[in-house]
Amino acid sequence: MAPHLTAHQLAERHRPTLDRALEAIRTRAYWSPHPEHPKAYGENAAEEGRAAFEALLGRRLELDQPGTDAWTGGEVSPYGTELGVEYPHPDAEVLLPAMRAGMGDWRRAGAETRALVCLEILARISARTHEFAHAVMHTSGQAFLMAFQAGGPHAQDRGLEAVAYACAEQTRVPERAAWSKPQGRRDPLELTKTFTPVARGISLLIGCNTFPTWNGYPGLFASLATGNPVLVKPHPRAVLPLALTVAAAREVLAEAGFDPNLVALAAELPGEGLAKTLATRPEIRIIDYTGSSSFGDWLEENAVQAQVYTEKAGVNTVVVDSTGDYRGMLANLAFSLSLYSGQMCTTPQNLLIPREGITTDAGPKSYDEVVADLAAAVDKLLGDDARANALLGALVNPQVEKRVEEAGGLGETALASRAVANPEFPGATVRTPVVVKLDGARKRWEDAGDRPAFLSECFGPVAFAVAVDSTADGIELLRRTVREHGAMTVAAYTTSEEVERLVEEVCLEECAQLSLNLTGGVYVNQTAAFSDFHGSGGNPAANAALCDAAFVANRFRTVEVRRPA
Amino acid sequence: MAPHLTAHQLAERHRPTLDRALEAIRTRAYWSPHPEHPKAYGENAAEEGRAAFEALLGRRLELDQPGTDAWTGGEVSPYGTELGVEYPHPDAEVLLPAMRAGMGDWRRAGAETRALVCLEILARISARTHEFAHAVMHTSGQAFLMAFQAGGPHAQDRGLEAVAYACAEQTRVPERAAWSKPQGRRDPLELTKTFTPVARGISLLIGCNTFPTWNGYPGLFASLATGNPVLVKPHPRAVLPLALTVAAAREVLAEAGFDPNLVALAAELPGEGLAKTLATRPEIRIIDYTGSSSFGDWLEENAVQAQVYTEKAGVNTVVVDSTGDYRGMLANLAFSLSLYSGQMCTTPQNLLIPREGITTDAGPKSYDEVVADLAAAVDKLLGDDARANALLGALVNPQVEKRVEEAGGLGETALASRAVANPEFPGATVRTPVVVKLDGARKRWEDAGDRPAFLSECFGPVAFAVAVDSTADGIELLRRTVREHGAMTVAAYTTSEEVERLVEEVCLEECAQLSLNLTGGVYVNQTAAFSDFHGSGGNPAANAALCDAAFVANRFRTVEVRRPA
Repeated sequence: MAPHLTAHQLAERHRPTLDRALEAIRTRAYWSPHPEHPKAYGENAAEEGRAAFEALLGRRLELDQPGTDAWTGGEVSPYGTELGVEYPHPDAEVLLPAMRAGMGDWRRAGAETRALVCLEILARISARTHEFAHAVMHTSGQAFLMAFQAGGPHAQDRGLEAVAYACAEQTRVPERAAWSKPQGRRDPLELTKTFTPVARGISLLIGCNTFPTWNGYPGLFASLATGNPVLVKPHPRAVLPLALTVAAAREVLAEAGFDPNLVALAAELPGEGLAKTLATRPEIRIIDYTGSSSFGDWLEENAVQAQVYTEKAGVNTVVVDSTGDYRGMLANLAFSLSLYSGQMCTTPQNLLIPREGITTDAGPKSYDEVVADLAAAVDKLLGDDARANALLGALVNPQVEKRVEEAGGLGETALASRAVANPEFPGATVRTPVVVKLDGARKRWEDAGDRPAFLSECFGPVAFAVAVDSTADGIELLRRTVREHGAMTVAAYTTSEEVERLVEEVCLEECAQLSLNLTGGVYVNQTAAFSDFHGSGGNPAANAALCDAAFVANRFRTVEVRRPA
Repeated sequence: MAPHLTAHQLAERHRPTLDRALEAIRTRAYWSPHPEHPKAYGENAAEEGRAAFEALLGRRLELDQPGTDAWTGGEVSPYGTELGVEYPHPDAEVLLPAMRAGMGDWRRAGAETRALVCLEILARISARTHEFAHAVMHTSGQAFLMAFQAGGPHAQDRGLEAVAYACAEQTRVPERAAWSKPQGRRDPLELTKTFTPVARGISLLIGCNTFPTWNGYPGLFASLATGNPVLVKPHPRAVLPLALTVAAAREVLAEAGFDPNLVALAAELPGEGLAKTLATRPEIRIIDYTGSSSFGDWLEENAVQAQVYTEKAGVNTVVVDSTGDYRGMLANLAFSLSLYSGQMCTTPQNLLIPREGITTDAGPKSYDEVVADLAAAVDKLLGDDARANALLGALVNPQVEKRVEEAGGLGETALASRAVANPEFPGATVRTPVVVKLDGARKRWEDAGDRPAFLSECFGPVAFAVAVDSTADGIELLRRTVREHGAMTVAAYTTSEEVERLVEEVCLEECAQLSLNLTGGVYVNQTAAFSDFHGSGGNPAANAALCDAAFVANRFRTVEVRRPA
């Protein structure tokens, strides 16, 4: 059967986008082909998306995969409802060989066609952004607009970025080269050489609960675009967004004449620990993982047959030294702490504030004043329940709520967490951030024997206002925190060139991504594809960054064939 | 003190070479700035080089490194003489921190200056190629001309290639970007972003006995050019070439105003196993290794705190199906088997020849005839002792000799090994290749329980003429060999397009580098920098290829700092 989608059609549709993406990763200027505004998707898109999502509920999601030995599900929305969707559970002995069967055709398609097929998959997903937004919302607990943006266009951007990197990387070596080595008076030695990018093997994506698409798409598309089949093992509480992704990928692959089994879903039975079983199988040659440090470290240490790309946990720090825009700083930080209830891997946790206070455009502010003003800024931001719900979303699991409850016991509470009612979803657990004052005197963290609370990750809407002896001490604490516990983000506020230089030096030496003096509409916890790196890959929080050449270059190898010319 | 060598001087001297190297890795056409002919190095170079080498013997090689707690040595040339050179043994607790001290300045120098400093190091080494040739000869056992070429210009080419890749990789992201995100009617969000490549940490080079410079330079220069200090742990029997390299690097670094401790030597005490101790230290973030599969596998499994690049051992196969140039094929294979006594990781081991014989331009040839004719070709090539010595070099260690002795017991000897006297170096052990006939019937290798000799690496001048049931069976055996035991090289001779296609398909699927129908002056065991990949990194023989983007891209990370514009 001839494919419905020819290479020519794909090139006509997507080559300009691919070229633009290739340019963007080179200049790192702002760019996105995926609109952020829900209204940009057409007049009826919102309604149709909701209807499409609702039609999924309480049913089996048929993917027509080989080797399905059971059906499994059980997702409960953080907004309170059971999704009731069932997904295929794989018999790996059948599914994995079936996934390898299409690798030859996928390799022969070449890097450009693979990239264009990936762009078609992303385009299909983009057209269904409203539907995906509901799926992300009701698995992650993100508020609708955030689920829409982070789970839709921003995730699609990150996927496209990975495709662009993969395409660039595979086409840096020419397909063919003529080689002629002079031999003095004798004839030159002459060879014709061909170079073919080849896949490593099956790639395993281990998804996370909070950002199933945003954190999943880079690895999925990087591996697929470099020729590898991708087995998607979602977090058991956030299967739906990735299952829909798998369905879209299988549909496009088949239409373009490739084996749909190049992308497959592996949903797990309750308590099965399927990721662990799959991760060390010899067929699995690449793993992308987002989640806890303990399992990420386990993967790095045990899945030695695979290339392992991890995003784990860290302790994100803000150094507060001084500011020329006190209100802007407070507003910016209040937003960062509140967005998605602090459940982003990039949310600041420790605000290091000199015990003696800071200088600001509004005059000197004591440590207590800064903390009180920040608390007031958070309160003001979240004072209105509708707005609070729209910013906070819902807590993703009961452990986060427990952490919020227990945070008060760690120190003096500067701002207590407040439960917010959600009239639309009464089952949602919505909590505002708690801000706790902690003593950051050097003696508290110099002795590693007694680890203070601020040197562990406290995932969720919990921020620590840590009183440090001085800015210099805060910078040293920043260094230790990044070196020993990792960080996805670092921020600093200062009007001093010297302090700025010192913080920058620590970030360069300890390999952490730094945002300086953010007081407007850019937040430390947000990164933009094509321009910002997400994580550095060089501190304990992650061994890879989204997205750079290192993220894709080792997902394929180059096979050379040489012949006499 | 102002540096003797300024960035400007370095750029004037080396920027054109760097640009040419960057072009070469992109086109993969022939190029080298390092002449292969010994006479190209000046009228007195040979004499001066020999004198410089001899002046090293029996002395301490002072490197002025911090943290030297002992002196160690004991190299004995495969040509029979004791070198008597002593090298510093490191106290890691002192040396490693000292190596880190210069990282900040090295980072601030930037990617281009780091590359140019590396090119100056290579230029100094190039000017001393005759001296290095003797050092390589008397540690590896290579014959002089091979030690000169492979240990000199070809190694320098591989080093330069790694520098070019490192430079290209670090400059793909701009140093600075302006980012402006439209906000509809509101002002755009605007940020200024800087991107800085930062090192991972100390890089450990674990050198090998047979090609200390050729296999060592890619990792050494890739790591140094990406900002990492490099600790060089040579093979205890091949210290001198890498010690001289370290000395040259330290000299250039100091002259250019950088800390010479960015490159240091770690020579080991007898039986110390220093590589194992160093490899798992937390300061070691990158490891380059060439050597046995067992230690390479150990490193991959245990040095999980580091990026580990290994070249291990494989079983190299030649599929002999048919040829249009029978004499050319025999001569080419005879040379490949003889060069450096088959002690190259790329030397063919298994010649798979159909039991029923092959078709050739000289008429059909039975299996026995092919083997006999190959034996005769080897005999003819090595019939003259002077020529034999010039091609074979010396056996690198007694284990190789033992293997040659025992090879006769594995099957019928088609060509016995002959001891060749070396009048200049009576202490050298020089042996011609042994060719052994083995039964390659499918039942012999289908049952994994009883592994035939041809499914293990037999390092040294031992070739197996394996009688397979058919070419198709040979191709299947090739697949199993590569998949299960790895291969640095694959070769095939065929006039059939279909056989060519099938062999190529196996190499693409199992990720092995293929040379087809080599009958002239290019040999399967030789690869040229800037054009050929050495190894694929995708089968058990090696996890990396020399040299591609994947070899350098993860040796550094990119730190981004963003500020409001």
